Amino acid sequence: MHSQRVEMLADGIFAIAMTLLVLELRVPSLPPGATPGEVAHALLQAWPKFAAYAGSFFNLGILWIGHHNHFHYMRRADRPFLWINIFYLMCVGFLPYCTALLGSFIWNRTAAVIYGCSLLLAGSALYIEWRYAAGHGLLSEEATPAVVRSMGNRVLIGLAGYATAVLIAFVSPRVCLAIYVLIPFLYLRPSAIDRHLRGERVPARDARPQPQQVE
Amino acid sequence: MHSQRVEMLADGIFAIAMTLLVLELRVPSLPPGATPGEVAHALLQAWPKFAAYAGSFFNLGILWIGHHNHFHYMRRADRPFLWINIFYLMCVGFLPYCTALLGSFIWNRTAAVIYGCSLLLAGSALYIEWRYAAGHGLLSEEATPAVVRSMGNRVLIGLAGYATAVLIAFVSPRVCLAIYVLIPFLYLRPSAIDRHLRGERVPARDARPQPQQVE
Amino acid sequence: MHSQRVEMLADGIFAIAMTLLVLELRVPSLPPGATPGEVAHALLQAWPKFAAYAGSFFNLGILWIGHHNHFHYMRRADRPFLWINIFYLMCVGFLPYCTALLGSFIWNRTAAVIYGCSLLLAGSALYIEWRYAAGHGLLSEEATPAVVRSMGNRVLIGLAGYATAVLIAFVSPRVCLAIYVLIPFLYLRPSAIDRHLRGERVPARDARPQPQQVE
Amino acid sequence: MHSQRVEMLADGIFAIAMTLLVLELRVPSLPPGATPGEVAHALLQAWPKFAAYAGSFFNLGILWIGHHNHFHYMRRADRPFLWINIFYLMCVGFLPYCTALLGSFIWNRTAAVIYGCSLLLAGSALYIEWRYAAGHGLLSEEATPAVVRSMGNRVLIGLAGYATAVLIAFVSPRVCLAIYVLIPFLYLRPSAIDRHLRGERVPARDARPQPQQVE
Repeated sequence: MHSQRVEMLADGIFAIAMTLLVLELRVPSLPPGATPGEVAHALLQAWPKFAAYAGSFFNLGILWIGHHNHFHYMRRADRPFLWINIFYLMCVGFLPYCTALLGSFIWNRTAAVIYGCSLLLAGSALYIEWRYAAGHGLLSEEATPAVVRSMGNRVLIGLAGYATAVLIAFVSPRVCLAIYVLIPFLYLRPSAIDRHLRGERVPARDARPQPQQVE
Repeated sequence: MHSQRVEMLADGIFAIAMTLLVLELRVPSLPPGATPGEVAHALLQAWPKFAAYAGSFFNLGILWIGHHNHFHYMRRADRPFLWINIFYLMCVGFLPYCTALLGSFIWNRTAAVIYGCSLLLAGSALYIEWRYAAGHGLLSEEATPAVVRSMGNRVLIGLAGYATAVLIAFVSPRVCLAIYVLIPFLYLRPSAIDRHLRGERVPARDARPQPQQVE
Repeated sequence: MHSQRVEMLADGIFAIAMTLLVLELRVPSLPPGATPGEVAHALLQAWPKFAAYAGSFFNLGILWIGHHNHFHYMRRADRPFLWINIFYLMCVGFLPYCTALLGSFIWNRTAAVIYGCSLLLAGSALYIEWRYAAGHGLLSEEATPAVVRSMGNRVLIGLAGYATAVLIAFVSPRVCLAIYVLIPFLYLRPSAIDRHLRGERVPARDARPQPQQVE
Repeated sequence: MHSQRVEMLADGIFAIAMTLLVLELRVPSLPPGATPGEVAHALLQAWPKFAAYAGSFFNLGILWIGHHNHFHYMRRADRPFLWINIFYLMCVGFLPYCTALLGSFIWNRTAAVIYGCSLLLAGSALYIEWRYAAGHGLLSEEATPAVVRSMGNRVLIGLAGYATAVLIAFVSPRVCLAIYVLIPFLYLRPSAIDRHLRGERVPARDARPQPQQVE
């Protein structure tokens, strides 16, 4: 119950941050009688904004799946946990701005660095939240030390990727952006955690021949 | 539990995408002392934006009901499923932009094609998600092969409609828009799925004379 | 389960429509070094926007409480019900625009009429939804004919109020606005429904000495 | 069930109010070919907006945690409670505007006073809601008189802090802002309530060796 409301706030903020990304996409300022070719041309010129939209949607997707997996193991929340979580959500809520900045100044080092630093900050908050929960008895018994380490490492890999990208931005913003695009693909393939999550559910499945529990 | 949070994110994104549509409706830029007639005239002139608002709200309604019906059968989610779902939500979140484009350039072929392609992409993601879930054991036992096929076909009908409309846009954007308006009506009448959903609930209703389960 | 997701979408749309109202409030366009007096003066001049914000928040509150009370009795949803509900939410999602219009043209008859008509349309959808649900077996057994009539009448009273206000707008927009402000007060006092809702919960309360159910 | 939907609306509004804060952060209006240094300089100049974003996110965090803790004890809601709650949410939804005002006029007394008064109003609504719920039998048995007093006092401390800050704004807006920044830190450390909440959960934990209840 307790941690469920934290999830609701988090899901709300993720949903809104993801959807607000679209507000940065501006309709071309052409007269209403513009030809189809003129509209198409204006849209093609605005490609960095569309790329930033898709990229940020997927990066928010990673952060949401990470949060989602962590909360699978949450049993309860305490006050410091709530505050770490609010800090995490503050970083998540800041991403639409970084996306707008990157969409406006696509090859600009400052925009690329700020974008990466926001993801780094969000990822770090996610890591700290997970470690705090593990160290203060907020997780269920399913979260064995192996699970805690494996989940933590998965976040650390992404953090290492973002940190590398930010450093590379000082040499070449283009390579940096390419890394931002590639990082979500790291998270596409199933991990040890997924196998663990799948494993757990097997006994639960056996235990529900009763119609009420099918729901 | 697992798939419930996916639903929460999806409902959040649908709710926001539907509500953000209103932000594209601009108050007429008239002086505060404008007469009632001037305000009414300015609003009438902006009719394409209001039509686009209503049309998109209903098209998002179709996509939401489709998603809603699919999740009735979901038992669990795996990682590829989550990513297909995030891609689906990215298309949903993109619709307010397409709506704004269409509202600004109502008879423009480019705007009509982009609008239809977004709906096609969203519908395709919904179809792939459903097929993936069926093929990877993510659905409950209620989802018999007949249900899987019937639900899939229902999405395919809409996809065929949107694809036809997009092709027609190259001949006449007006006919294309008329098809966009008509497609939601296809989904107004109850389908085999609805009868199936109704059928299922009957035994569940018998099983709940206990006060705790009435909730 | 089924009708729970409908509630989630509705709550999302209400929450967003209520919160988007704030986006119509603009920061005064004064230089950053403006004196406190200048800022205060500019804000006072924008009072119609603040009044429209508060008024719409409360009118959305009425619609939400109405929806909330109806769903207390919902057992399941069918397809026409979902579509009536989506139409209802479309009206709800349109209210921030009407609010912006009224905030910009406070004494303008057109703005006052459109505002009232939106509320009328939303209230009518709520009434039709309730009657449809009652007539098609979507309500639980608690919804006796007396409850159905009483709940319906409560919506009708509001509709009568809004319709009167819209008609009066053609004579005096100021009186019309005064009625809009007064209508929420009608709904402040508890109704027969509240007593009924309270009555129901009494046996449920007796039935929960077990610690798990206290949650 | 009843009070759960109130929570859903509240969480939605908090999530949206927190996320809308980001819309006040504007991308610098520089040409697309601006140098990294120019972008960085423009962002540094806009620091009050970033500070207002972070400050408001944390102040909304306090209000959300307060609401969250209160609802832990809620058993049911009645109509006046719903209206107090809607008034509370109206204040919460107004905070993004106050944040925008403060971000635009950072050392301006008017902006600082309005910001503090909004927080005061929101906090007062939270306090009244809690006292009303306690006085009208809406709380569960866990809410002993000691808990009611302790929870109420915690809100009062924040109210005293905001009231002091507002008064100080008339002497020095800078000191006032410093107090706004410091108040969230008051709420970082665990309180008697947290110990109570933790205490309650202990027996509940003993009662769930069954796998279904671990969820």
